[in-house]
Order: sequence, then C-alpha cells, then structure tokens
Amino acid sequence: MRVVNICQFGAGRIGAIHAENISNHPAADLKWVVDIDLSVAGKLAEQYGAKATLDPQEALSDTNIDGVLIASSTDTHVDLILAAMQAEKVVFCEKPIDLDLQRVDEFSSNIAKLGCPLLIGFNRRFDPSFRALQRSVREGKVGTVEILKITSRDPAPPTIEYIRNSGGLFRDMMIHDFDMARWILGEELAEVCATGSCLVEEKIGQAGDVDTASVMMRTNSGVICLIDNSRRATYGYDQRIEVFGSKGMLQAGNTSPTTLSWWTDKGISKDKPPYFFVDRYEMAYRAELDHFIQVITGEADPLVRYVDGRQALALAEAAFISSEGNGVKVNSDMFHSDQTAERI
Amino acid sequence: MRVVNICQFGAGRIGAIHAENISNHPAADLKWVVDIDLSVAGKLAEQYGAKATLDPQEALSDTNIDGVLIASSTDTHVDLILAAMQAEKVVFCEKPIDLDLQRVDEFSSNIAKLGCPLLIGFNRRFDPSFRALQRSVREGKVGTVEILKITSRDPAPPTIEYIRNSGGLFRDMMIHDFDMARWILGEELAEVCATGSCLVEEKIGQAGDVDTASVMMRTNSGVICLIDNSRRATYGYDQRIEVFGSKGMLQAGNTSPTTLSWWTDKGISKDKPPYFFVDRYEMAYRAELDHFIQVITGEADPLVRYVDGRQALALAEAAFISSEGNGVKVNSDMFHSDQTAERI
Amino acid sequence: MRVVNICQFGAGRIGAIHAENISNHPAADLKWVVDIDLSVAGKLAEQYGAKATLDPQEALSDTNIDGVLIASSTDTHVDLILAAMQAEKVVFCEKPIDLDLQRVDEFSSNIAKLGCPLLIGFNRRFDPSFRALQRSVREGKVGTVEILKITSRDPAPPTIEYIRNSGGLFRDMMIHDFDMARWILGEELAEVCATGSCLVEEKIGQAGDVDTASVMMRTNSGVICLIDNSRRATYGYDQRIEVFGSKGMLQAGNTSPTTLSWWTDKGISKDKPPYFFVDRYEMAYRAELDHFIQVITGEADPLVRYVDGRQALALAEAAFISSEGNGVKVNSDMFHSDQTAERI
Amino acid sequence: MRVVNICQFGAGRIGAIHAENISNHPAADLKWVVDIDLSVAGKLAEQYGAKATLDPQEALSDTNIDGVLIASSTDTHVDLILAAMQAEKVVFCEKPIDLDLQRVDEFSSNIAKLGCPLLIGFNRRFDPSFRALQRSVREGKVGTVEILKITSRDPAPPTIEYIRNSGGLFRDMMIHDFDMARWILGEELAEVCATGSCLVEEKIGQAGDVDTASVMMRTNSGVICLIDNSRRATYGYDQRIEVFGSKGMLQAGNTSPTTLSWWTDKGISKDKPPYFFVDRYEMAYRAELDHFIQVITGEADPLVRYVDGRQALALAEAAFISSEGNGVKVNSDMFHSDQTAERI
Repeated sequence: MRVVNICQFGAGRIGAIHAENISNHPAADLKWVVDIDLSVAGKLAEQYGAKATLDPQEALSDTNIDGVLIASSTDTHVDLILAAMQAEKVVFCEKPIDLDLQRVDEFSSNIAKLGCPLLIGFNRRFDPSFRALQRSVREGKVGTVEILKITSRDPAPPTIEYIRNSGGLFRDMMIHDFDMARWILGEELAEVCATGSCLVEEKIGQAGDVDTASVMMRTNSGVICLIDNSRRATYGYDQRIEVFGSKGMLQAGNTSPTTLSWWTDKGISKDKPPYFFVDRYEMAYRAELDHFIQVITGEADPLVRYVDGRQALALAEAAFISSEGNGVKVNSDMFHSDQTAERI
Repeated sequence: MRVVNICQFGAGRIGAIHAENISNHPAADLKWVVDIDLSVAGKLAEQYGAKATLDPQEALSDTNIDGVLIASSTDTHVDLILAAMQAEKVVFCEKPIDLDLQRVDEFSSNIAKLGCPLLIGFNRRFDPSFRALQRSVREGKVGTVEILKITSRDPAPPTIEYIRNSGGLFRDMMIHDFDMARWILGEELAEVCATGSCLVEEKIGQAGDVDTASVMMRTNSGVICLIDNSRRATYGYDQRIEVFGSKGMLQAGNTSPTTLSWWTDKGISKDKPPYFFVDRYEMAYRAELDHFIQVITGEADPLVRYVDGRQALALAEAAFISSEGNGVKVNSDMFHSDQTAERI
Repeated sequence: MRVVNICQFGAGRIGAIHAENISNHPAADLKWVVDIDLSVAGKLAEQYGAKATLDPQEALSDTNIDGVLIASSTDTHVDLILAAMQAEKVVFCEKPIDLDLQRVDEFSSNIAKLGCPLLIGFNRRFDPSFRALQRSVREGKVGTVEILKITSRDPAPPTIEYIRNSGGLFRDMMIHDFDMARWILGEELAEVCATGSCLVEEKIGQAGDVDTASVMMRTNSGVICLIDNSRRATYGYDQRIEVFGSKGMLQAGNTSPTTLSWWTDKGISKDKPPYFFVDRYEMAYRAELDHFIQVITGEADPLVRYVDGRQALALAEAAFISSEGNGVKVNSDMFHSDQTAERI
Repeated sequence: MRVVNICQFGAGRIGAIHAENISNHPAADLKWVVDIDLSVAGKLAEQYGAKATLDPQEALSDTNIDGVLIASSTDTHVDLILAAMQAEKVVFCEKPIDLDLQRVDEFSSNIAKLGCPLLIGFNRRFDPSFRALQRSVREGKVGTVEILKITSRDPAPPTIEYIRNSGGLFRDMMIHDFDMARWILGEELAEVCATGSCLVEEKIGQAGDVDTASVMMRTNSGVICLIDNSRRATYGYDQRIEVFGSKGMLQAGNTSPTTLSWWTDKGISKDKPPYFFVDRYEMAYRAELDHFIQVITGEADPLVRYVDGRQALALAEAAFISSEGNGVKVNSDMFHSDQTAERI
C-alpha cells in the first residue's frame, strides 16, 4: 500500500481532528504541523510523531510531502493554497476559501494557472446519510425536485471573538447549507430572500451579527429551497435535510449515540443527537480524508472544487445583503461574474 | 342530556362530513339541510332523517334550531352568517370567511352589532397532535419560540374549476397554515416574503395560480416562520409542524393508519400517511363539533373567531402580493386596518 | 339503510362501551339492556333510549330484536348463548365463552344443533394494525412464518375480587394472545411450556395467581411462539406483535395519542401508549360492531367462532398446567378432544 | 503515551478485525501474528508490520509482548490461555472458552493458580446501546427487572462445516445472548426450557443442529427471560434487547447505516440494519480493545471474566439438553458445580 505524506497547516480545534485521522489512517502519515504558535504546533506534532514549524516554506520544501491540508485561520487560506500549489502539492483547504468574494474571484486565475488538484473541505458531503440522500436524488428516487429544506442548528453559540472574525452567520455557518443546497439540487440558486434575528445572545447582535436566521431561495426552474439556522439548540447539533419531488420525499435526520428508548409513566424517551460536529461528522471527516488521499494518489478527482467554495460564498453574500435590506430579494446571479472559477 | 338542533347549509364534500358527525353525536340532531341543489340536500337530509330545503329562511325560521353550520360555497358565507345571526342562531362557518379582505372588513361591523357567538372552521386547531403542540408551547415547553416551520402538502391537485374559484393557493390552502402560525405563536406576523412556482400541473399555471409555494415571515419580536405547500404529494397528505425555541423543539408529525413495519432485504417499510383531510382530521372534525355544541349550550366561547379568519386572510393576501412581486417583502400590518374585527 | 335492533346483556364496563357504539352506529338501535342489577341496566338504557329489564326472556321474546350482545359475567355466557339462539337471534358473546373447558365442550353440541350465527368477542382481531399484520402474513409478506412474538401488558392490576373470579392470568388475560397466535399462524399450537411469577402485587400470589408470565409454544411444523404478559406496565397498555419468517419480519407496535416529539437537553420524548383497552381498541370495538351487524344482516359469516373461543381456552388450560408443574411441557392436543367444536 | 505490544493468535475472519483495530490504535502495536497456516499469518502480519510464526512459543517468548489476543479456533483456546499466562502475559480470549463444560471446569484451577488478568471476548458488552441499557438497568431506571427479552438473528447461515464444528446453535450463537442475560440481570438463571426447529436449511438439521430456536428461563427471584434466535434474517443482522421492570421498559434496537427515510406512494422506507457483526459491532470491537489495553496497563480489571464464559456455556448446555428432551425443564444449577470459576 502506498502511504502518502501530509503537511498540515493549523493546529487548532479542527486541525486536531484532521491530525488524529491522518495518523490513524493506514495509508497516510502526518509529517509536518505548521502553526503561527510553535508550541501548539509542537504539541500536536509530537503526539503523532511529526515535525513542527512556524515557517510554511520549511514544510513545503520537503520533497517527501505529497499533500497539504490547510486548517489554519480563514484569512491565510488563499495565500497558503497558492504557496502549496507552487510547491506542486495536492491541496485540501477547509471552508470557507475566504470571507471576501472579490478576493476569491481575483485569486481564481492564479490557481487556474497552477492547476494542482484542490479539494475544498465541505465535510457534510461525506456524511453517510447526506451522501445517500444526494445519490438517491440523482438516481431519481423523488423524481423532479420541487422543494428542498435544510435545518442546521449549533448546540451553543461560539465566543464573541469568534463571531467577530467569522464574517457573520451567513458566511460562517449557513455557508455549509448553501453548499448542501447546490450539491443536492445540481442547479444554481437564482433568487435569495433572507432574514435574521438576534434572539439567543444580545452580545451577538451588538457585534453586528444575527443568531437565528432563514433563507428562502428559488432556482430558475422554480425549485424552492428553505434553510433555517440557529446558534443554539439545547438538544444538541441539529442537522437535517428534506427533499420533496414529483415522486416522493427523502429525509435525512439526526443521528443518535445509542438506539435506546426508555418507556415510563412520563412518556417514551430517546437519546438526543450528538453534541456537535466532531461527533456527528466523525465518519464524514474520515471519509473526507479517504477521498483526499485518493486525490493525492490520482485515483479520484476532487469532489468539492474551488467553484463550489466560491458559489456557496456568493449565496452567503446575497443572503447577508438581503437580510440587511430587510428581506429584499437579491439575485445571486449578480455575484456570478467570474467565469474562471468554473474551471477550477 | 340536552340535545341541540342544527341546521346545515351546504351538502357537498365537507357538508357530508359534518352531517355524518352531527347525526352520530349523541348531543346533536341534524334537522335541516339547505343547498342550492335541492336533490343534493334531499339525499343528505334523508340519510340522517332531516328536512331539506333550498330556502335559507325556511330553515332559519324554525324556532327549534339552536345552531347553524355553514358549509356552502365561500361566496355565500358572509350573507348566511348575517342571516343566521339575525335569526339569533349560534353560527359555525367553514373557512375562509370570504376571499375578499375588504368585504370581510366591511362586514365585521354588522356582525359585531348582532353579537351572536360565531365559530370559524379552522379544523386543524382541533387535531389532537397540533392541539397538544400548541398547548405545550403555551406551557413554555420550548421556552421562547424562535423558529416555526409548517409543512402542508395535499395528495393531489383539485380540478381546474376548483382552482379557478379558490382564490389561489395562498387564500385557499396556505390560509390554514397562516392560522396555525398565529395560533401557535400567539403573536401577529409582521413581515411576509412569499414565492411560488407551477411545477405540478401546467394547467394550474395557465389558470394564474401556483402549485408549489413557500412563505418566510417574521414577527416584530423577531420570530421566524417558514411554510411550504405543494398541491401534490405522492405519499399522501403531509401535515407537520415544528416549533423551535430557547429550551428545545416540538414536532408534530404525520399520523399513520397502522403501526405496522415490514423488514425485508429491501429495507424497512411503514404505512404512508392517510390519503387526505377526511382521514387525517377525522378526530379533529369530531372535536370541532363537540366544541360547537358547547358554544351553542353556552359552555364555551368560540376558540376560533371572526378576527382569526380575517387575519389569516390578510396574511394570504400579503403572501399573494409578495409572490406576484417576485418575492418583495410585504408588511402584513398594511392589511391590519379594521379594528372592529378584534372584538368579534 | 336497514337498521338492526339489538338487545344487550350486561351493563358493566365493557357493556358501556358496546352500548355507546351501538347507539352511535347509524345502522343499529339499542332496544334492550338486561342486567341482574336493574338500576344499572336502567341507567345505561335511559342514556341511549332503550328499555331495561332483569328478565332475559322479556327481552328475548321481543320479536323486533335481531341480535343479542352478551357482555354479562362469564359464568352466564353459555346459558345466555343458548337462550338467545333458542329465540332465534344472532349472537355476539364476549370472551371467554366459559372458564371450564369441559363445560364449553359439552355445550357445543347444543349450539351446533341450533345453528344460529355466533360471534365470539376477541376484539383484537379487529384492531387496524393487527388486522393488517395478519392479512400481510396471509399474503406471504414474510414468507413461511418461523417465529411469532406477542407482548401484552396491562397498565395496572385489577382488584383482588376480579382476580379471584377471573380464572387466572392464563385464562383471563393471555387468552387474547392465544387467540392472536392461532389467528396469525393459521396452524394449531402443539407444545406448550409456561412459567409465571408473582412480582407485581403480593396479594395476587396469595390469591393463587401470577401477575407476570410467559409461554413458549411450538406447532407441529416447528414454528416457535413466545408470549409475555404483565399485569402492570407503568407506561400504559403495551400491545405488540412480531412475526418473523423466511422473507422478513412484520411488527405491529403500540399506538400513540399524538405524534408529538419533544427535544430538550434531557433527550427526545414522545407520548406513551394509550392507558388501556378502551382507548387502544376504540377502533377495534367499532369495527367489531360493524362486523356483528353484517353477521346479523347475513352479509358476513362470523370471523371469530365458537371453536376459536374453545381453542384459546384449551391453550390457556395447557399453559396453566405447565406453569403449575414448574414449566413441564404440555401437549395442547390433549385438550383437543371435542370435534363438534370445529363445526360451530 | 505508553504503547502496549500485542501478540495475536489466529488470522481468520475475526482475527482480521482485531489486527486492524490494534494497528489503528495509537496505544497499541501488533508485533506477532501466530496461525497454524503460516501464509495466512504472514499476509496479515505484513499488512500491519508485524512478524509471523506458526510456533506459539516463539511469539510468547518475546519479552516485549505485553498482551496476547487469542482469536484462533475454539479447541485451541484453553491451551493458549495457559501458555500465555505461563509466559506472564495479560490475555484476551475470544468466546467461547471451549465447547466442553467439563474441560472448562477442570481447567479453571490451573488458571486460578497463575492469576494473570484474563478478558473473555463477549464483544456485545461493549456495544454503545447495550452498554447504555445495562448501565440504565443498574441505575434503576426500570426499577426491579421482571422480564428480559433478547432477539438475535444472523443474516445467513454459515457453512455446514462451520455448523459441524460449532457445538450447535445454543453453544455457538445463543451463548452471546446467555451472556447478555446474566450481565443485564445481575442474577443467575435457574430454570431453562428450550426448543429448536430446523426451518431454514435442511442440511443444518441433517448435521444434527437447529437453525431457529428459543429459550424461556427464570431466575430464583422469579424474573423471566426469553431469547429467540434464527440463523437467517433477510433484512440483516437483528440484535435487540428489551428490559421490562416495575418502573418501565428499556429497549435497545437495531442500528442503521443511514438516517434516511423515503416517502412514496408505496409507503415509507428506511435502511435495513447492518448486514452482520463486523458492521454492527465495529464500535464494540474498538471499545473492547480499548478495555483490553487498560487491562494490560493495569488501569482496569477485566469486565468479562472466566466465570462469565463458563456460566454462559453452562446455560447453553442446559438449553441444548432441554431442547433435546423436547422442552423438558432443566435447572442450570446442575451445571454450577465448580466454585473455583467464581474467583477467576
């Protein structure tokens, strides 16, 4: 079995997940951990027998490295993608590509020139239930799609610092749902109406963001898509998708840690869903890594491309503008200027 | 046990349901069936030992009659409400009061003067699951409500003739969901964005209507409400409500004719929901009649009032305008002019 | 529509259910209520506009009476069946026919001679879910049946007086499950091993009965059947059946008063099952009455016959003997002497 | 982190699962694979960077080895346990210890003398749902246990060769359920009635075994336990447990590969359970390995001991005798002679 060597940028929360998965994978070795905080990089590197550095070039110049996994802060993504590609590595980059749509578009021509395989980290595409749902839709199991509904609610709001740097709920959180929508529909959204409220935590509103939001969208062929988000669900991480079409409906519901049900004089109780994404998407992260390794070895083309990251961001942008304008309808076409993106 | 005597207007599909329930109810007798088609009235009347007429006054002048149930065509509702009240009867009127909001408002002062108890037939308020959900919300079981989602899909589209006289999907079908939304939230909706498509049957579009639609609304306090409708669900009548709040979530799902599950090498199968409203809301229609009898005997005040019929129609109007204007946001406040309605 | 006239014996708990259903049924009139306590008979009769008596012959000699429903105490059943048949009425008799298998067998020749249609009240055969399960088994949806499992648990034990007159758990309670087993399998059980414990209420044991019991049976073709009973389930009336076969499995689960689910930080809660048989089998009692009316009008042959009541009692007897003998295996064939029963 | 070194006996189907888990575990290294077929051992060893041998002593004499995992054929278990203990290794042994109860008992004194920690591989004790169920029972969530029901059905029968060497359904398959019963009840079973049929495959009966079986047991305190087994379930691996007690009921159901549900005019469909134990108990095998590593490092005492393997075998023996004697009741006490077992 060929074992691929990976260099990882970023040693934070999401970085820890990737590092563990790489080290447990029989076909991958974690060789470098790069972080602006050398002690954090060192700790993670030591745990899995990798080297640590704060200099990206030191790691990228290692000719043994096959793939680069970028899980550092969002504002570093595009520069690191470029650097990794210039070093001729296959790249995996966590979502979002960037918070600035213009920057994403300007950047696309550089990337297109280099032409290394690039995988964008929309992990939900690798969730077993959502993947089965998307495949079933493609196979025509609900006929022509007419209504798509996505629910996505976090267990608890992040810190205000996180909120301030997040780009807001639409770009940080709902961006996952925009990607799900495009992936399942197989058609671009054309009209976007969004609304948001600050109902969970006053400080979030003071930071200029919302914590409860929804979007109503339509494609040119008339398909309707509804998404709702909340930053706080007491019962855990709520991740559901429903697709309705001419031949029926498909639902992908929440997972459960156990199959236990408890019957008493108070009623019937079951386990609530997993607390957050680490647990819910444990299998998705592993499958994503499997796929990345296949992209590195040339066995697969990236299932999530630059254009996917770009389009999800454009929808987030449209939703943000709509919600700011009190629900005014926005055509996401207006964002759809850069044609290069299509090719990456 | 006091037995109340009831005169029913309308002997069509919904009239047949009411007539059967009245005749089966130990505390009610069906005395008159009035219909513009005397043979139809006569057939239903004969089945339950009632008298038939096409003259409303003949029936209303019967001093033995305690209550009047109006299940005739929509355009006759307001005149019959007035006539019945003038004859000092307690009135039950099927939804909608009328398709014309202005007429409903003009009419309200007449009704207010007469002051007879009036019950509007939003049958879903009497469904055991939706009733338990609304009560649980009132009891604070989900804390402060933040997101409300309502799904309502018919098994198959009605005839084009029905569509033409229906006032359109928003006024004919989604009006039920608008009533559910107001009832569950206990707060008026303030902003309405709606969109609709013709995806099920081309003729519906040719008749100027949509068959697939959604609405995104917000209250002044920031609560978000999403509704989706379709005129055709292959798997039956789809009626679900989800309420999300600061303390959790409540879901009321579809009912099932049996509890059977069938496990084979193809998967696990269960019964689909009941085919349509007659089956799904069988219990609701009975409970509605129980309540009407209590209104007649003075044991209860009407749980659904003229103002409820009026407000649901105003939201339907707002949604229609929004969808016509390609999703433009409409403030339902603009319809909220007539204050008399509040008192009826 | 032909309306049949019914005379009912017994005005107790189960009698009240039947009387209400008869009076609500458009095709049936309750004409007589007969009870050894005239005031009880009178009260029920008055409620539904019937006449009351304590003299069976007074009611049976009424030539307007088409059908006789026997819901009196068990020891009166066989005599009343005989009297009603001699008066040429169609008869419905609540289970069990009698507690004494020998008496049931001796009696069968008398009944066979008279030849009036006789329906035995195993109400569960009319439950929508169990009926759909039985039909599915007949249609071969699980292939050849190999294992049958029945769970039947009451919400709370009856009074000790009831227990003392009941004939014991096997004859009073599990007899329903024996009937279900025979009906679903379509084959007689041949071997019976039973065991019982007194775990719920000490007084039940002192009265010589058990409150927790199970039976393991086998047919001659090798099909295995397991039944478990309890006199007390805190979560309500537990009524489930599972059939496993060469092509798969069918399960009929508990019903639920609502479809509500409640998601909180404690888990996901749903309604417990209905409290007891009145609620769970409401539809079954109505369907049973529909069937009885059809038997009276000659549109249907009885779906549950004398032999069915007899065989269920024989299995109960076998289970009782097995449990008394500490689980010794009993062949139910030993009870299967009376061949006349087959023909009734 | 301390990394423990493991020597594994057996490179067959179950061995492959253990070897993969060991090699993926950050705290364990697979050092030796021992098998009577050197090429099979070599293949597995090579895959994970271990050494292969067919000589047990060569591997056991490696002083770097901390733990020995025995996954070889059943008849080698006791000798390998002894050899490994003599080499002062911590031992994990797959179930069953042996097929001969007498041999298990004779052997127990040898093992007791050596006193190395020994873990018996009843993997289901590590299944997240069953573990949560057992813990909930211990915490009193159903009060006093009164009825325990276990369903265990394989997707398809093994080869006739496997059947011939298996010791029969009760010792090979139901032994898992006997262990579950003892573990959940926390009390020994005292009475055993068993029955079995050959309904799935004629050849199984010709080999002297059954393929469909059930057991009805009772403890001295009166708790009832029912188990049913089949060698073939078309819908996959069926693994369910239900515990009923004075305060309610707990059910642990089947798991599902996805949460998808598909609604069509045919009904509502869901995924069937995982095909077999490799998938269903994937998490259980990992948790079992975690526990074995903790036993090796001294952080935990074995959760499943020699006596547990012994008692499950005694119940299997009792069930076999009962089924051979046509359902005769057998007291499992008769097998309960060896007191040494208690201490291991």
